[in-house]
Amino acid sequence: MIKITVWNEFIHEKKHQKCMELYPNGIHSAIADFLNCEDDFTVRTATLDDEECGLTEEVLADTDVLIWWGHAGHKLVPDEIAQRVVRHVHNGMGFIPLHSSHASKPFTMLMGTVGNLSWRESGDFERLWVISKAHPITKDLPDYIELPHEETYAEPFGIPTPDEILFIGWFSGGEVLRSGLTYKRNNGKIFYFQPGHETFPTYYNKDIQKVIINAVRWAAPEIRTEKIEFPRIPVTNQF
Amino acid sequence: MIKITVWNEFIHEKKHQKCMELYPNGIHSAIADFLNCEDDFTVRTATLDDEECGLTEEVLADTDVLIWWGHAGHKLVPDEIAQRVVRHVHNGMGFIPLHSSHASKPFTMLMGTVGNLSWRESGDFERLWVISKAHPITKDLPDYIELPHEETYAEPFGIPTPDEILFIGWFSGGEVLRSGLTYKRNNGKIFYFQPGHETFPTYYNKDIQKVIINAVRWAAPEIRTEKIEFPRIPVTNQF
Amino acid sequence: MIKITVWNEFIHEKKHQKCMELYPNGIHSAIADFLNCEDDFTVRTATLDDEECGLTEEVLADTDVLIWWGHAGHKLVPDEIAQRVVRHVHNGMGFIPLHSSHASKPFTMLMGTVGNLSWRESGDFERLWVISKAHPITKDLPDYIELPHEETYAEPFGIPTPDEILFIGWFSGGEVLRSGLTYKRNNGKIFYFQPGHETFPTYYNKDIQKVIINAVRWAAPEIRTEKIEFPRIPVTNQF
Amino acid sequence: MIKITVWNEFIHEKKHQKCMELYPNGIHSAIADFLNCEDDFTVRTATLDDEECGLTEEVLADTDVLIWWGHAGHKLVPDEIAQRVVRHVHNGMGFIPLHSSHASKPFTMLMGTVGNLSWRESGDFERLWVISKAHPITKDLPDYIELPHEETYAEPFGIPTPDEILFIGWFSGGEVLRSGLTYKRNNGKIFYFQPGHETFPTYYNKDIQKVIINAVRWAAPEIRTEKIEFPRIPVTNQF
Repeated sequence: MIKITVWNEFIHEKKHQKCMELYPNGIHSAIADFLNCEDDFTVRTATLDDEECGLTEEVLADTDVLIWWGHAGHKLVPDEIAQRVVRHVHNGMGFIPLHSSHASKPFTMLMGTVGNLSWRESGDFERLWVISKAHPITKDLPDYIELPHEETYAEPFGIPTPDEILFIGWFSGGEVLRSGLTYKRNNGKIFYFQPGHETFPTYYNKDIQKVIINAVRWAAPEIRTEKIEFPRIPVTNQF
Repeated sequence: MIKITVWNEFIHEKKHQKCMELYPNGIHSAIADFLNCEDDFTVRTATLDDEECGLTEEVLADTDVLIWWGHAGHKLVPDEIAQRVVRHVHNGMGFIPLHSSHASKPFTMLMGTVGNLSWRESGDFERLWVISKAHPITKDLPDYIELPHEETYAEPFGIPTPDEILFIGWFSGGEVLRSGLTYKRNNGKIFYFQPGHETFPTYYNKDIQKVIINAVRWAAPEIRTEKIEFPRIPVTNQF
Repeated sequence: MIKITVWNEFIHEKKHQKCMELYPNGIHSAIADFLNCEDDFTVRTATLDDEECGLTEEVLADTDVLIWWGHAGHKLVPDEIAQRVVRHVHNGMGFIPLHSSHASKPFTMLMGTVGNLSWRESGDFERLWVISKAHPITKDLPDYIELPHEETYAEPFGIPTPDEILFIGWFSGGEVLRSGLTYKRNNGKIFYFQPGHETFPTYYNKDIQKVIINAVRWAAPEIRTEKIEFPRIPVTNQF
Repeated sequence: MIKITVWNEFIHEKKHQKCMELYPNGIHSAIADFLNCEDDFTVRTATLDDEECGLTEEVLADTDVLIWWGHAGHKLVPDEIAQRVVRHVHNGMGFIPLHSSHASKPFTMLMGTVGNLSWRESGDFERLWVISKAHPITKDLPDYIELPHEETYAEPFGIPTPDEILFIGWFSGGEVLRSGLTYKRNNGKIFYFQPGHETFPTYYNKDIQKVIINAVRWAAPEIRTEKIEFPRIPVTNQF
């Protein structure tokens, strides 16, 4: 079983009429719903409203893959909690930041960059191209995924060179974005995925769901340590 | 002219007899000395003893490339100063962390990893292999550089996938390290270079000096911004 | 001085009315013209019509950077000539394949892939986004270059993972392409650049010219060898 | 079931006394033996002695992962057979070249480089360091694998920038090599692995076997096509 925690700040869905209608129980619940259909997944959710953001040492130690959705509340996540997430990623926990989580505390701490990009909320059409077909995360996908409306995210995107670029987004207003990216940080695997604005039904799209499901299986730890050490090693030269 | 600031914590050279003898004016002075022989370089130094570590906004804004040597004093660098360095790297300032600066605040903040490695102070012989000859940083170097004694640094090295690996170190005790690495973070170029333990005369080696001189020219900004922005962009589709 | 050879198959410009009007002396001449305005460049041209395609051992040995434009005549380049080009790239000659040269013999031999992509000659508008601003090849460019009409080239693009992605093209019909790519092969630097269909005035665009000029300076050899060797090395262990 | 073909030139083991003793039925048989212990593997072997090198269209089309061992007989593999292997890799077949296969026809065709390195047959001790622990190929391995004797392979190694470096070899005579490398070429995954000289019992080492077993599972196709196409695509802009 792969143990997943879906974290969502859960702010827009309590305030804006359109988000409420689209995601009445929050984006985290919509994501948990489709993940729960997979036999090898066990899913919990957590939000800003929970004590310690729902991300205690116990919860993170019991999480194989953490999915993150944040936007308006990036600053409301205490530094200590963000650093705890980062530490668990270093130890091997998979991490999947979605959409505006490019500017979240844990993702920017893990990247060492600002995560800047240009943006526009005009409901552009997005065509999300699969750049690499021979990858577990893009398995069984068509050549591209079409999203009738998405927030426009545009290059230049202030990120380190990705280990792999799996998707590039085309926006009808004339922009592009490296939209699906993998990284490793110590033992942890990271997959950033751009789609999922709170005012559009992106997480109900079957292919978007397939990407996230594939990414969970890919990001599950190969190895999980208690702590990253800086060991002093003995002299062993006896060759 | 390329404006260089050589920063050194300047701790060991005031305490340990051997370091005092090797680097009587500090490692920063030894590095500044050979940099000053280049016609297109202008060099200043700064240490932990200076106010604000000698790294005020004014100094960093006037620095094209910052060279960093830290070890015992990583924690003595205030977070605010480290974040200021990181911000200037994002804006385009070149950054060259040396030796034990793999665990310094600015480098680990820029990497998003712990920078862990195994180590041993047994004065191993190191042979530093040039992995990529067709690079400005390795220009005019022999196949390898031999250092009679260095601190052993060993894999696994907890760093993100480098953009380029230019050197791999071979240690007589049986260890290897990816020893010369390039990264980009937003507009800033970074070159990590492993040699330079405080008890060995590494920075007097002519080829080590050549690497650092080459690296300064490579790391000088292609572009320097005041600030990284997240611009809201207008609808422009008129194609 | 950087010695440049601009190679062009020179077929379309002798057959199609529109190409004749746009490039009366061939695409190679148009490219040579703007390169010749640079003080540190010396430029020669060569085409399929020349003996040995104009790419004798002498010419290649005297070339720092080879620019290549091919399309209809890929198969007319003898294997032996293509292999000669590949060998000189291995030895350190820079190589800049343009537009449909993604499927040329030397480029696919150097990549080890097919170079496949989807395409459409409908004169789409292209907006060419600069992905990495801190690179010698993108120096002094705006955020993007707009080309009123280009041939559409679309992902998936069958190429190895690039060392660097500098441009991504956005096409008005809904496609994207990784459009400016760097690679190294032994001592040689390679820059693939997508724009430049024979029926459009792309090579008269000042920013496109700037990219090619920058790329020539970047691709000039750091080192040039006579031959790549597989040396048997002696036992040297005396540490 | 993952269908594996183990290809070996099968020359040394029929000529040299020491190889005969170590691998009486050939290196291919020794490799097939430990692969056959895995429940999800089905294994066939092929050699230079077989018609069409045992690598007919039918065999390759029925192969998920091809393991390759070649050295003295690189030139005896017909270009047509090597190109056939390359084509099947493009279509998705996994490819695992071992040891001196760095200079084999299919590997150098897939890389676009010469695959040069320095070498010495002095039976150096090799310590093979695991550089990345969070990878399916290094799963369940110790920090390093020790081989009492191996042929020395040394940098500079004339290969394209690897997608991933999983192992670095340390040789007792003072050399290092990037020893375990992944690449993608179109739909095919490639893992080059350095150990395995014909005069040493490397393929009986349990950890070396584990690497090869892990690599087979990693290299099995995510997708397999009949042919790589260059499709002309229609105008679809209706956004």
